[in-house]
Amino acid sequence: MIDYEGYLSRAAGRMKASAIRKMGGMVAQGKDVISFAPGFPAPDMFPWAEFEEITSALLSEQHTSTLQYGPTRGYAPLLEAIAGIMAQRHAPTTRERLLITTGSQQGLDLVARVLLDPGDVILVELPTYTGAISAFRNVCSEMVGVRQEADGVDLGELDDVTVRLRAQGKRARVLYLVPNFQNPTGLLIGQAKRRALLEWADRRDVLIVEDDPYRDLYFPDCASEADVRSIRADDTSGRVIYLSSFSKTLAPGFRVAWMDAPAPLAAKFELAKQAADLDTGELDQRVVYEAVRRGVLDRQLPLLRAHYQHKRDVMIDALHKELGRTISGPDPFGGFFLWGTLPQAIDADALIPRAVDHGVTYVAGDAFFVNGQGQHNMRLCFSAPTPDRIREGIARLASAIREELSQRQDGSVSQATR
Amino acid sequence: MIDYEGYLSRAAGRMKASAIRKMGGMVAQGKDVISFAPGFPAPDMFPWAEFEEITSALLSEQHTSTLQYGPTRGYAPLLEAIAGIMAQRHAPTTRERLLITTGSQQGLDLVARVLLDPGDVILVELPTYTGAISAFRNVCSEMVGVRQEADGVDLGELDDVTVRLRAQGKRARVLYLVPNFQNPTGLLIGQAKRRALLEWADRRDVLIVEDDPYRDLYFPDCASEADVRSIRADDTSGRVIYLSSFSKTLAPGFRVAWMDAPAPLAAKFELAKQAADLDTGELDQRVVYEAVRRGVLDRQLPLLRAHYQHKRDVMIDALHKELGRTISGPDPFGGFFLWGTLPQAIDADALIPRAVDHGVTYVAGDAFFVNGQGQHNMRLCFSAPTPDRIREGIARLASAIREELSQRQDGSVSQATR
Repeated sequence: MIDYEGYLSRAAGRMKASAIRKMGGMVAQGKDVISFAPGFPAPDMFPWAEFEEITSALLSEQHTSTLQYGPTRGYAPLLEAIAGIMAQRHAPTTRERLLITTGSQQGLDLVARVLLDPGDVILVELPTYTGAISAFRNVCSEMVGVRQEADGVDLGELDDVTVRLRAQGKRARVLYLVPNFQNPTGLLIGQAKRRALLEWADRRDVLIVEDDPYRDLYFPDCASEADVRSIRADDTSGRVIYLSSFSKTLAPGFRVAWMDAPAPLAAKFELAKQAADLDTGELDQRVVYEAVRRGVLDRQLPLLRAHYQHKRDVMIDALHKELGRTISGPDPFGGFFLWGTLPQAIDADALIPRAVDHGVTYVAGDAFFVNGQGQHNMRLCFSAPTPDRIREGIARLASAIREELSQRQDGSVSQATR
Repeated sequence: MIDYEGYLSRAAGRMKASAIRKMGGMVAQGKDVISFAPGFPAPDMFPWAEFEEITSALLSEQHTSTLQYGPTRGYAPLLEAIAGIMAQRHAPTTRERLLITTGSQQGLDLVARVLLDPGDVILVELPTYTGAISAFRNVCSEMVGVRQEADGVDLGELDDVTVRLRAQGKRARVLYLVPNFQNPTGLLIGQAKRRALLEWADRRDVLIVEDDPYRDLYFPDCASEADVRSIRADDTSGRVIYLSSFSKTLAPGFRVAWMDAPAPLAAKFELAKQAADLDTGELDQRVVYEAVRRGVLDRQLPLLRAHYQHKRDVMIDALHKELGRTISGPDPFGGFFLWGTLPQAIDADALIPRAVDHGVTYVAGDAFFVNGQGQHNMRLCFSAPTPDRIREGIARLASAIREELSQRQDGSVSQATR
């Protein structure tokens, strides 16, 4: 028997399974488990009929390029459409700056490969998106976390950390942020802070990777277009690499997203993508382009905002009803996620088997921290389940938590009397 | 202005554009240029009507998973179907060994990332596939080439090179091969040599990466199923990582391919893919699955064999008619490529501008060599153009070559008399 360990690269030796993806596997085992784990958009909101009409038209047209290999940068009309979207977002751009990616996950991977050598530091939020952690880990970079305040990353700590790292001789020149409805906390970086971040990046010579998949999904009862204005929109010195996606607004099954970056970097991302998968699915790109061109995307957005806002309300109401203030956390202004903090007596990771016994699951908080924190946090994703399933799932979660708390108290008592 | 060079990783500093992709861009500039450059399948052979029927059925069914995120390993029914294909190829496998990839290019990238550290050596054929060169270069590995004989890689030289590298203290434990109708030479590794390669890999403790996209496209007038039997089919000790694809037999626009590898390695490839793009397009995977299930793929194969065999004949006949023996090279037994050797007076790369002036293009041979050779070689791809365009393109190429040769002779004369 061959010992394959000996063949692995150092990066492969460090690779770990994503907690979210493991959770997906667990739920797939059968049994009625309501999952608040994966950040899936609501499939009943996909514009199925329009997609069917579009693909049918595209395939009956038999334009040779529709099913052929295509340019690595992406399908030209889609690139133009994205330039239009960027202009609407107050961030006008050019073709030289744009690259279509196979989901934003590929964008993160390209960032990692083009900007990070083994041992280089990338600054991230505490907590941050697990997929970004995986991408940065797989190039053997070192991730250093900065805590978040109610309006996003703590600027003072960010600067202290950066100065300290550089004093240690570390190469720390890239900051990764999810400013709008962050995965996993749902937090929004305040507009003043975004401007301050740009000034800071200029002063400290840092590039900002702005990952922005949720910006169109703000909740009208508490947020507006003005709140989600990107850092990129005010970047006059070329500090921002901007990532966005159609996965949350059209459908993730197409794997179509984009990057906008200073042209010299975009050229490198293109080369990295060329070797990574040649190009993004050509039919997928055309379907997405047609959905933009025909106004399907524009019609979807207000419907999605209302849909997810309602589900957030359902989940928050159910939590209050079932658990009072046992789980605390910020009310999200948009996006898919509720970030819950549990009582200190409960370890979110250790609670999972009991939760699954009760027929519910979530992602334990430690998966989102690069510094080992998060034991008492959980990410609850309200986007995919129906309102009824959200209520039922929270009821199940509540009984699991009550059971855990009562057993813990018994345990403490018996320990105390032992 | 920011100097972005200073932000790049070492890998990014080394990244180069693929000669094939650059060629694609040049042809796109307008002007009637017949391109023998990209290895595109013939789009008029895609089963358009069947794809339309399948996507229409899939989208009208509205099964939630069709447009959702999916498991990184791939769509379960497609994985089962691939296990069936592997069994037909005399290489029965299990689910633990299989992974769907976003094209075989992603498979190569995953191989590079999981098996190669910077400075590690990967052994490749001289010449070899440019996409593999890019993937291996992008992890800063060192590629060492081994020359090919008429029946494939030279075993004696392979062993000598390996022993020599190890004596130098190099980590040289992976060999990359395209045994069937190699890109770019069209060569086929003999069956006896395949068995010998397995013995050699066991003796020298080497893993073989077998890249096999063209195996179903053997030409019935000179090859058969028996000739394309994979190295993997006889691998009893777990030495082979096998890659294959639906890009050449169904359509590349779907970006659906697969890897078959020893389970511990497949698990690592899965983790690497998770961070690279989460999963391969879900609709794409389902379309491919349906095409397999409904027998579309099986019906395509004999048609494709006849189609490409005919185009090979057209190209070879045109070359003989137009150029006699000016361009020499092996007659391919399958696949898409004709590998031509030019007279020593002609540099294939330098000839390109003249060829484009005459309305034809190709890929110059040096792009496929990791040791700087190939100046007098060209890869002519006969798969995509129609027979008439192949004839016309070869006529244009012939006039470009005649012009070049006559100017060279004039040049030599004038030099000699100077």
